[in-house]
Amino acid sequence: MKDVAEKRAELVCWKNFKISGGFWEERQRQNREVTLPTIYEFFKDTGRMDCMKGLYTPDPTGKDVLLDRANGKEEGIFLPGGEIISFQLSQLNGEELEITPGLVPRPHPYWDSDVAKWIEGASYGLFHEANPEVEAVIDRIIEDYEKLQQEDGYVNTYFTFVEPGKRFTNIHEKHELYCAGHMTEAAVAYYEATGKDRYLKLMCRYIDYIDRVIGPEEGKLHAYPGHQELELALIKLYKVTGEKRYLRLAEYFINERGKQPYYFDIECAREGRNPNRPSGKGFGRRDEIPKWPYAHFQAHLPVRQQKEAVGHAVRLMYQCCGMADVAAYTEDESLKKACDDLWNNITLEKMYVTGGIGAESYGERFSFSYQLPNEQAYNETCAAIGLAMWAARMLQLENHRKYADILERALYNGVISGVSRDGKKFFYANHLECMPAVYEDRVERQTRMFPVRQGDFPVSCCPPNLARFTESITGYAMTQKGTTLYLHLYMDMEGTIQVAGQEVGVVLHTAYPYDGKILLQITPQEEEVSLTLALRIPQWSHGYEVKCNGQILSCQMEQDGYVYLDRSWTSGDQIELELDMRPLLLEANPKVRMDCGKVAVQCGPFIYCLEEEDNGTELFDICLDADSKMEMSFDPQLLGGIPCILIQAKRRAKEKWQGALYREAGSSYESCTVKAIPYYLWSNRRIGEMAVWLCCR
Amino acid sequence: MKDVAEKRAELVCWKNFKISGGFWEERQRQNREVTLPTIYEFFKDTGRMDCMKGLYTPDPTGKDVLLDRANGKEEGIFLPGGEIISFQLSQLNGEELEITPGLVPRPHPYWDSDVAKWIEGASYGLFHEANPEVEAVIDRIIEDYEKLQQEDGYVNTYFTFVEPGKRFTNIHEKHELYCAGHMTEAAVAYYEATGKDRYLKLMCRYIDYIDRVIGPEEGKLHAYPGHQELELALIKLYKVTGEKRYLRLAEYFINERGKQPYYFDIECAREGRNPNRPSGKGFGRRDEIPKWPYAHFQAHLPVRQQKEAVGHAVRLMYQCCGMADVAAYTEDESLKKACDDLWNNITLEKMYVTGGIGAESYGERFSFSYQLPNEQAYNETCAAIGLAMWAARMLQLENHRKYADILERALYNGVISGVSRDGKKFFYANHLECMPAVYEDRVERQTRMFPVRQGDFPVSCCPPNLARFTESITGYAMTQKGTTLYLHLYMDMEGTIQVAGQEVGVVLHTAYPYDGKILLQITPQEEEVSLTLALRIPQWSHGYEVKCNGQILSCQMEQDGYVYLDRSWTSGDQIELELDMRPLLLEANPKVRMDCGKVAVQCGPFIYCLEEEDNGTELFDICLDADSKMEMSFDPQLLGGIPCILIQAKRRAKEKWQGALYREAGSSYESCTVKAIPYYLWSNRRIGEMAVWLCCR
Repeated sequence: MKDVAEKRAELVCWKNFKISGGFWEERQRQNREVTLPTIYEFFKDTGRMDCMKGLYTPDPTGKDVLLDRANGKEEGIFLPGGEIISFQLSQLNGEELEITPGLVPRPHPYWDSDVAKWIEGASYGLFHEANPEVEAVIDRIIEDYEKLQQEDGYVNTYFTFVEPGKRFTNIHEKHELYCAGHMTEAAVAYYEATGKDRYLKLMCRYIDYIDRVIGPEEGKLHAYPGHQELELALIKLYKVTGEKRYLRLAEYFINERGKQPYYFDIECAREGRNPNRPSGKGFGRRDEIPKWPYAHFQAHLPVRQQKEAVGHAVRLMYQCCGMADVAAYTEDESLKKACDDLWNNITLEKMYVTGGIGAESYGERFSFSYQLPNEQAYNETCAAIGLAMWAARMLQLENHRKYADILERALYNGVISGVSRDGKKFFYANHLECMPAVYEDRVERQTRMFPVRQGDFPVSCCPPNLARFTESITGYAMTQKGTTLYLHLYMDMEGTIQVAGQEVGVVLHTAYPYDGKILLQITPQEEEVSLTLALRIPQWSHGYEVKCNGQILSCQMEQDGYVYLDRSWTSGDQIELELDMRPLLLEANPKVRMDCGKVAVQCGPFIYCLEEEDNGTELFDICLDADSKMEMSFDPQLLGGIPCILIQAKRRAKEKWQGALYREAGSSYESCTVKAIPYYLWSNRRIGEMAVWLCCR
Repeated sequence: MKDVAEKRAELVCWKNFKISGGFWEERQRQNREVTLPTIYEFFKDTGRMDCMKGLYTPDPTGKDVLLDRANGKEEGIFLPGGEIISFQLSQLNGEELEITPGLVPRPHPYWDSDVAKWIEGASYGLFHEANPEVEAVIDRIIEDYEKLQQEDGYVNTYFTFVEPGKRFTNIHEKHELYCAGHMTEAAVAYYEATGKDRYLKLMCRYIDYIDRVIGPEEGKLHAYPGHQELELALIKLYKVTGEKRYLRLAEYFINERGKQPYYFDIECAREGRNPNRPSGKGFGRRDEIPKWPYAHFQAHLPVRQQKEAVGHAVRLMYQCCGMADVAAYTEDESLKKACDDLWNNITLEKMYVTGGIGAESYGERFSFSYQLPNEQAYNETCAAIGLAMWAARMLQLENHRKYADILERALYNGVISGVSRDGKKFFYANHLECMPAVYEDRVERQTRMFPVRQGDFPVSCCPPNLARFTESITGYAMTQKGTTLYLHLYMDMEGTIQVAGQEVGVVLHTAYPYDGKILLQITPQEEEVSLTLALRIPQWSHGYEVKCNGQILSCQMEQDGYVYLDRSWTSGDQIELELDMRPLLLEANPKVRMDCGKVAVQCGPFIYCLEEEDNGTELFDICLDADSKMEMSFDPQLLGGIPCILIQAKRRAKEKWQGALYREAGSSYESCTVKAIPYYLWSNRRIGEMAVWLCCR
């Protein structure tokens, strides 16, 4: 298990490469110093959001229900990761919880996953930079979980305190196996980062329990997660433990999903629930989401028959990660084919230019093909992260630029737009247009649709997801297959790989994504190493040049978007790749009616946008030409120094309107220069208009 | 009261002019022969809508609750205007009604208004064309209401059967005074049309009762309608009876509205209701409509302080009609000023190019300024009717083209789009764009948002509203002030006016709105008459020519968009007005971000649209030029013969896309000719795409 398979590419582990400078060093540092501590604070309190300011106000009526109860009874209570007072397991069974409108009482069914994602991110951080304080917090949380764990291995905060005695009675809706998945990922990360295995062993005991009660055998529940996630976590556990039962369980979940009779129906019948009237509160009339209760969970069809991406976007992404993982470790071609069907449907019909997916806020779900409204885009940050995670896994199955291009598109746009420049505030929904007045007028259904990033959420799924992803970013950059190293993402990093038994040092120096020049140094442990480097040439790059030790290499083999450099490397051998990074204008397929007559600006992997702060109001009246002159301009004052694009454009002359609403066409247009900034940085200044797609005439 | 005031313009009564041919003759005939009978059938049954087909399926579970109960008890029950079995008043008091999801049990709180609007429309029809059968139906319904009327004059079906004993306990929400208003309008219409006064007397008794229990005096309720409508009806009743108390009551309602303490709060406190949690079912979470419970009802401020149009659009339109009426009859300048504030806000910031208003479906309400989404436009048919009604009333206060232009814009676009070409199906919501797949994916919140007109609605407010409006259309065409006759709308009609004691015949012959030529003949009773004709020159007309008895008249006085012809007329004098009716392209104010980079096509009063049926799919990818060649073309085969516009345009060449979602801009464009049809005729063929605003480059 520890060696790279010869016949299959495998992602180079995040541990093997450290970020050494540039774009990601700054982000990882902020992630450790600001974001992870900020998220940890979320766990301690809850409050009310002011959506226009991105501030939350601690609200006494919203304090942890468990805490209140415990205080009332003058008995201790514990919430792993939350305010830890003491541990008494038997206090609160059975009583109905009261829910304060707009607040989710804690622990909610997702509690363990929020905490686990934080532990996972913090663990990666510990590997990069020792932090005894953080390590102590994690150890204390692990201790809490050890106390929480039942004799049989079961461990879940919500079902211990809020619905004791109800374990595995609502796998359909209550995120029990989803929590198990995130806890597993966290345990693996903590083990990999620190070598400590208490959490890993705890989770093995829990997974062993799950394996005893769920599975194909008679007498077991023929269940699969209501929210996919455990599938991919089991593969991580399999990789770190070598225990094939974990792979088999993941495979079972994938294969069982969507079979008839539906497990969710069986469970509902057993528990006396109506599958069309789910019990979850606070979500509106769920039964009116098309094809609820199956398609929302991607349980309407067996996974190999799912040709169209439907339902909850994050669920599908985690499912696809699991499918790709299982395909990789079982060599199941039919699963690879199923992944490709969904991949094509999503990336060719249901994805924003930012890599955002899941357009529809109602149900956080995929809409129909080409339905990509910009202002109302939901585009959950977690879904873009899921897409990137899946894309990287696809590169294990097939080395093709199309996967890496989407991985990068999501990463530099729809993923990192989720966090503010200061690392403290977060978007769940990532719109592609913003008109602030819309939010003042908003109604309940637009929950989580905000014009500015928020300081807290009752359920904190995206912030720690982003934190763990950022901290393990090098784990998505490369795959290795035998003696071939595929470079998919370029970042300033250094590390080692094993090639034919020897350790080979690999160093990348680059100002990418701001600059297209990448220096790559190969240092074999021995005198030389025979190694093929496969360098991705992004689809957006109009051209490239490769030099080896200063000499231009021409006529290299190119395949599926990679240039292959096959040679014997000696210490100090240096490759210089230069990608053409001139700004481009993009157009969308005519079926995307929202973008007809419009263009988007891209430079390198970044999609750009216009903001009111730089360009005034009525951004939507700005018109570009198909051949608008665009000039890169680094602004050292702006948001800590960022690349901008100055674009020659036009806007309607306004003096003649005098308040009229309609008039005969025939406006004159005035030349102007507009300033575009990378999309991911929008909404870091004053609240205002924003547009990605711009009129073009 | 019967004479036209010398110092104030007054609308020429619908009775005084009959349609004699052309566009409106055909519509009125269909209205009488098809639409009114179709609506009458609605009253007899209910069912389930299939929103994609515009068909409804009678559903046994949705049958009239009252009917079911009556059948169960083997006792008769009656529903005025519905299935009339017999009349027993005392059966159903107090029991809770069960509501079948998606269906509104009958009688709902709006029942009397639906029936009254039908009676009103049918009454106008009786005047135009005798129909003993219809007259008998109306008489029978009036008899039912006579039986229903209480000793004290009170009459309301819902509060008699469904909530007996609860009268005037929920004026806030339950449409009691709204129903009284429509019944009053119906009674006036039936009286004017037939001379029969039973219904009028019945309503006078009811209004007298209302006047005894509501008003400024101590001991009375200081209430005003929860849904405005009675205000304008009281003016009609005042005009037909001369009873000043009715004018005073209308004035009281207008003046009391929005005063603090809010009557709705007083009522809620008295009845133990939470004003933030209205009791109505089936509407979603009403408390989340901004500024509910006051602004939704335009009760947040006294009417003279309402500068911005907010809340439920139809409510505000009826309020403004009442304000304009009261201003006209009390010469209250402050009310005229208040009307103008709201007029400017709506027509300069919150109105679609079709005259549709009330953009937001959630609450059927006005959104914020310039928020005019095309695909999601709510634009209730009743709101456009209300705007037209208000515009006509404003012409009584000030003769300015701006009012008549909007009256006409609404009339020929957002009003008549409400009914299908065959007169049998209806839109509540009038979108400006359509992508059918949106509706298949729709969720609960889009109730009443359909891509095709529907055959029935549980609450039938728009269909009979349109029917009564169509049948009384001549009542909106002219105002008279002393010896000046203002012509606002041009239609083929003839009738008489009183000028200085003599009857003057006025005949208009025209193919308007298809043609810009209008012949006008004046026939005084005596030898001659001194009369000023004021002819509106629509703002869309680039020029005009006026001839009198064949001679071109130049240098006529023009003011506020009207050309004034002041002369002494003898029998047979003929005016010929010719308006320039070439097609135009319109643009919207840059603040309307949805329409930036787009144009709309207008010809005469009609806004045009493209439909998939004529132009294929991906309509949104069609681009016009600011100087696109447009050619009128009458298509005798299409929808019974309609004017079309053939427009030179371009669309992106598609062959290179091969399924890609985004690519570098630089498409080639191919010339094409597109065919536009009048907007009001959209969705009369197969379901498909539709667009009013088209890209322009």
